[in-house]
Amino acid sequence: MSAFSANEAEALAEGGTLPVFHGGDLDAARRQFPNAPEPWLDLSTGINPVPYPLPPFEASTLQRLPSAADLLTLKLAAAKAYGAPDSNHVATAPGSQILIETIPRLRPASRVAVVGPTYAEHAMAWRRSGHAVETVSELPSADRLDVVVAVNPNNPDGRIHAPDALRQLSRTLSSKGGLLVADEAFADLEADGSVGTDLGAGAVRLRSFGKSYGLAGLRLGFALAEPILAQRIETALGPWAVSGPAIAAGLVALPDAAWRQETATARAKDAARLDRMIVRGGGQIVGGTVLFRTATFRDGLSMFRLLGEAGIYVRRFPEAPSQLRFGLPPDKGAWCRLSRVLKSV
Amino acid sequence: MSAFSANEAEALAEGGTLPVFHGGDLDAARRQFPNAPEPWLDLSTGINPVPYPLPPFEASTLQRLPSAADLLTLKLAAAKAYGAPDSNHVATAPGSQILIETIPRLRPASRVAVVGPTYAEHAMAWRRSGHAVETVSELPSADRLDVVVAVNPNNPDGRIHAPDALRQLSRTLSSKGGLLVADEAFADLEADGSVGTDLGAGAVRLRSFGKSYGLAGLRLGFALAEPILAQRIETALGPWAVSGPAIAAGLVALPDAAWRQETATARAKDAARLDRMIVRGGGQIVGGTVLFRTATFRDGLSMFRLLGEAGIYVRRFPEAPSQLRFGLPPDKGAWCRLSRVLKSV
Repeated sequence: MSAFSANEAEALAEGGTLPVFHGGDLDAARRQFPNAPEPWLDLSTGINPVPYPLPPFEASTLQRLPSAADLLTLKLAAAKAYGAPDSNHVATAPGSQILIETIPRLRPASRVAVVGPTYAEHAMAWRRSGHAVETVSELPSADRLDVVVAVNPNNPDGRIHAPDALRQLSRTLSSKGGLLVADEAFADLEADGSVGTDLGAGAVRLRSFGKSYGLAGLRLGFALAEPILAQRIETALGPWAVSGPAIAAGLVALPDAAWRQETATARAKDAARLDRMIVRGGGQIVGGTVLFRTATFRDGLSMFRLLGEAGIYVRRFPEAPSQLRFGLPPDKGAWCRLSRVLKSV
Repeated sequence: MSAFSANEAEALAEGGTLPVFHGGDLDAARRQFPNAPEPWLDLSTGINPVPYPLPPFEASTLQRLPSAADLLTLKLAAAKAYGAPDSNHVATAPGSQILIETIPRLRPASRVAVVGPTYAEHAMAWRRSGHAVETVSELPSADRLDVVVAVNPNNPDGRIHAPDALRQLSRTLSSKGGLLVADEAFADLEADGSVGTDLGAGAVRLRSFGKSYGLAGLRLGFALAEPILAQRIETALGPWAVSGPAIAAGLVALPDAAWRQETATARAKDAARLDRMIVRGGGQIVGGTVLFRTATFRDGLSMFRLLGEAGIYVRRFPEAPSQLRFGLPPDKGAWCRLSRVLKSV
């Protein structure tokens, strides 16, 4: 077994097209481990493996341009589900990723702090738009800053920022024309109701529909912000940025609080089970959300290879080689398959 | 029958959310003509009323993030269908509208000419990004300009610009760092094979998947440009901007040249039939494409109302009240319904 460098793995995983190392691309896994058994078990993302049970799409959903009325109804449902005052506080987008790209373009050159390590696209996007970006390990004071980005709960370690601290920071930034960006991509299913509450006028909160509802292919995300900022985001994306299928799915799923509650409970059980399995495999749990668990291993690269050769793709971090992130297995067979590998060490 | 002003109609049609007067929003039609019979016949867009026969989406298409391999295959199919050298010359987007918004942001302040009257979002988007925009009635010389935008064939009058003139303009603009934007949203089904050919390194061509394939709800569009510009566009949109269903549809439909050929022939017949019907109704054909026909009427507003009260929604132009644009009726019943109204005058 020849070792390979983190850079090589990264280049392979990126397929030469993505600027940041991401999970979710099984083709990359296949290239890295050509002898692994098919089908692959993809645990490299934090997407709910039990998707919302969508009814089939109506033909008109695919054929017609999305209507203004449907979009408005979707925003009302999002405002209710995510705790925003009304539909004017909601911007819709084809996934939360494009919001991460868009928001930095709406501000003049700013001093930005990203609380990290975290999802790498934030710092990249702010830098691409010409802002001065630093990474800080804790929620900073707003003194020297215009913008603070905090992922809450954080990816990959699951760290949760206290809502009072975020609200205070939002208030201070707002008072001098600044902005708090709270990326709540993984907040929907967290038991702690304090994650993802209103953070005041100085904050924009980002929500991912695809992760919680297991429908990442649909591309649907939301920004919750003051009406002026929400409108600027929508203007930047233009009309009809969100597809008919994504709107139809949101209209059905967002008002379904019962499904969300059951799912939060079920995924929390899954997460606890996954923790036990990882510990049995020699891992030490760092943290996570109910949709992924992050652990360190004495030899992370060996564990990554062991899993890869068994056709199980987990998320690794070139900058933290001892660390691996596990998504939730989707079914009994997948749980058994993961268990077998983790027991074998 | 009380008259209403163009501004009122525009405000109604916009539902208060869109910056430009657009077709395609039946809810607006319902508000304008509350006593019209249901269901409405929407002829206000230029979307093919006979959609590509898609197979059902696989569950994984909805659930997983789109893979880099699928996106690459889609780009290869697009390069072939649209006559681009290779996949590096293709940028994918959730609809061509967001490309219209994005490209102006990638250039320093420029002197821009839009050949018009045309689709209003072009001038709006360049202005929003701080460029100096003028509307010109013919393809201009590049002397005083950095960017020229030409919609080809033009919407709403169907005017076609000679490829040699466009290539010459592209070359001249390119030689001084400028750009020709050729919006070919309606080029796919035109019989004249010279619409939508390669325009050289100084041009970016925009293509709309939803219009030709009758799948506008899916949101899929392409920019065909030099690799550096294509890459910059994709970077601005970020990874995963295009949904799984849109990619799946493109992968099936774009390689299907036979369907495209049959459809071009069938829609051309429809367009000719529609012309005869409009002329019978007192209209004078201005032009159009095989997906819409534009005509002037002695009293365009009265004709708009007559159609609206019969539950038929066509596209009108506040700045040119005598002019109406008709999309193609989708089926026999719709043809009869339109014919009855146009015969009644």
